[in-house]
This record gives sequence, C-alpha cells and structure tokens, in this order.
Amino acid sequence: MRIAVAIYEDFTALDVIGPYEVLAGLPDVELDFLATSAGPIRSDNGLIVTPTATPESLPDPDIMLIGGSSKPFGPLQDEALLAWVRQASDSATWMASVCTGALVYGAAGVIKGRKATTHWAAREALPAMGVEMSTDRVVFDGNFVSGAGVSAGIDMALSLAARIYGDETAKAVQLAIEYDPQPPFDSGSPEKAGPETMQLVMEMFAASAAAS
Amino acid sequence: MRIAVAIYEDFTALDVIGPYEVLAGLPDVELDFLATSAGPIRSDNGLIVTPTATPESLPDPDIMLIGGSSKPFGPLQDEALLAWVRQASDSATWMASVCTGALVYGAAGVIKGRKATTHWAAREALPAMGVEMSTDRVVFDGNFVSGAGVSAGIDMALSLAARIYGDETAKAVQLAIEYDPQPPFDSGSPEKAGPETMQLVMEMFAASAAAS
Repeated sequence: MRIAVAIYEDFTALDVIGPYEVLAGLPDVELDFLATSAGPIRSDNGLIVTPTATPESLPDPDIMLIGGSSKPFGPLQDEALLAWVRQASDSATWMASVCTGALVYGAAGVIKGRKATTHWAAREALPAMGVEMSTDRVVFDGNFVSGAGVSAGIDMALSLAARIYGDETAKAVQLAIEYDPQPPFDSGSPEKAGPETMQLVMEMFAASAAAS
Repeated sequence: MRIAVAIYEDFTALDVIGPYEVLAGLPDVELDFLATSAGPIRSDNGLIVTPTATPESLPDPDIMLIGGSSKPFGPLQDEALLAWVRQASDSATWMASVCTGALVYGAAGVIKGRKATTHWAAREALPAMGVEMSTDRVVFDGNFVSGAGVSAGIDMALSLAARIYGDETAKAVQLAIEYDPQPPFDSGSPEKAGPETMQLVMEMFAASAAAS
C-alpha cells in the first residue's frame, strides 16, 4: 500500500500528521511526504519537513492524502500540485482530505458533485467549487473521504483504516496511539463553542493573518 | 513565551505535533524544535524534520516539551539531551511531556517523587525511576504536566494553555483546530479496548520492532 501525503508551503502540520500516524501504523504501508518543489517545506506554524517523494517519483499512489492550511489559497493556485492531484486521482484507490485539503481536490476538479467536509471556516468554498458541503466530521463519498478541520484527520484516518483493513485492525491502531480523547472543553465546533469563543477565534485568525 | 519542543532520532511525530499545533496558536509564542544533533531528524515513521534550535541557542525556554517514541530507550541514553533537560528544567516555567517523553524527564532525574502519566505500554517504567505513575490522560504536578500516549498531547496542551492563558483562550484554540473528537471506536485505552484488541496491538508492536 503506497501512501502519498502531499505537503506544500504553509501546510498545517497536524492536518497531515494525525492521519500519517494512523496510516503509518498499518501493515505493509509505504508512506511518503510528496511535494512539487525541491527542498524542505515550512508549515504555517514553522515545522520544517523534508519531502520524500515528487509527482515524478510517485505518480500513482494507492492512497493520496491532502491536508489544509491556515493560508488555504496558496495550494489552489499551485498548478504543479493540481496536475498531480488530477493524475494521481485517476488511479488512486482512495482520495483523502483533511481541513481545507478538500478545496485542493475541488480546485483540481476531481470531486465535482461529490459530498465533502472541510474546516468550519472554509465551508462556503465547497459549493462554489461544485462540491456538496457537509458539516459532518468525516464524510465518505465513493472513494473520496474527507475530514473536517485540523484534528479531524485522526477520526478520518481511523475510519478509512477500518474500511481498508477492517474494524479490528483500526481499533488496534486507535489503542496504539491511545486515542481516548478527553478534551478539556466542549468548544470544538462552531455549533458547540458559542458566540464569545467564536469572536475570540476570529480575532486570533485576524491577528495571525496580519502578522504573516 | 519561548517554547522548546525537543526532538530526537525515532521520535513519534504526533506526540509533539499535537501540542505544537495547540501552543503555536497562542498569542506571543516563539516555538522551536530543538535537537542535540545537527541536521534533519527522522521520526519513527519516517517524517524528516529540520530542528530550529540547539541546547546552546535555547538553554532556557519558558516551556519545554518532550514527546515519546516507539523506541523509547534511545533518548534515555542521550547524555546531551539529558543534560539540556536538567539545565532547562532549572528555569522553565513549565515542563511538559507526552507519551514516553515522561521517561526522559525521569532519566534526567528532574521529576523524582512527582506524579506523571505516559503511554499505557510504558507505565511500569515510571515507578522504576522514582516517579509516581498515574493512568490519567493528563496529569499536573507542580510545574510538570504530562499526557498519556501519542494523541493525548492535544488534551495535555489544551489543558496547559488554559492554565497559562485562561479558559477562554484555550477554548478558542480548541475551536481553531476543530477539536471535537468523534473516534470511530471506543478502543483508545487498554481498559476500554478489551483483550482481543490488546493482543492485536501487541502483535503489531512486535512486528514493527522486528522490521526495524
């Protein structure tokens, strides 16, 4: 099972590292971080990662995974990335996204008419791309599976692992990464967070955008 | 707020990337990945990260964070790492660990008599180091906070963020990373997983150890 995790300048690290840790724990998996540019790639919060594959070296993975970014527009204009997405999606058994990674598939035109979820702040972008928007945390539509924002990639990848390897193996991976979440607050979605937390997070997003 | 996330050969990526994504989202934070060796560091599942700090460049962070490894003994014998842990813990406001990262503090001798949690498979190592073992997911003892295995780092870091910045800010970060976990199974701890899943995960650990 060859897995390509696409990364690009300003990717959000947890979007892809959650699923990577789940999928890399599965039997007979070969996992690469793929980028269209040479040299290390910097995440939006400063993690510097050296890619291990290029579109030329990995044109036809069995599973392709694309995460999102707090600066989601960059990858949507990256023609080399979109070209790889179009090519790889032709033969991939599974296409997976986390967060605004769904928009990358949308921009590549390979999920037209399908249903997808994304980060709550980016939901409106999906219908504009001809993609049906869902607010669910994990959404399967044919061979395309999407997870909501950032941390949702762990839930997405465990669900995908269950589809491919069966429930028992997925349960074992969940135990291996001790995924028995106990979030300190119940503020993880806009529906649960309430208006004050929502206002605060929008101020944080604005401050972060102004600083960059 | 200067944060040092220590990484070392064969570190488990999600252990540190969970907390990194939480802490990097806080106001006025400068976060570095610190290593005692030069050049890129390879995680146990193949993520290649370039460190941005050394013990010399960051001897006195405000927060120090150490994650674990599926090969936990390596860092316990890394004298340069242990020396930095001893030095940095002298002045750090917070010492944080995830997974077998607690064992690194234990080996450095800086949490003697304190209470800590770690990955379920490594619990027995703590008493042997003079550290009181807890099976809780997140444990505070003075200025030392520990999280259980791998994914527990997200819960740990949100709890720590709440202590430092207050609940409202931590709630906003939780919303920013859409941390509204919906694990597909209830198998995330040995207590919940049952004997069959437990046996399967032990076989996976053995196969992974044999392959490496």
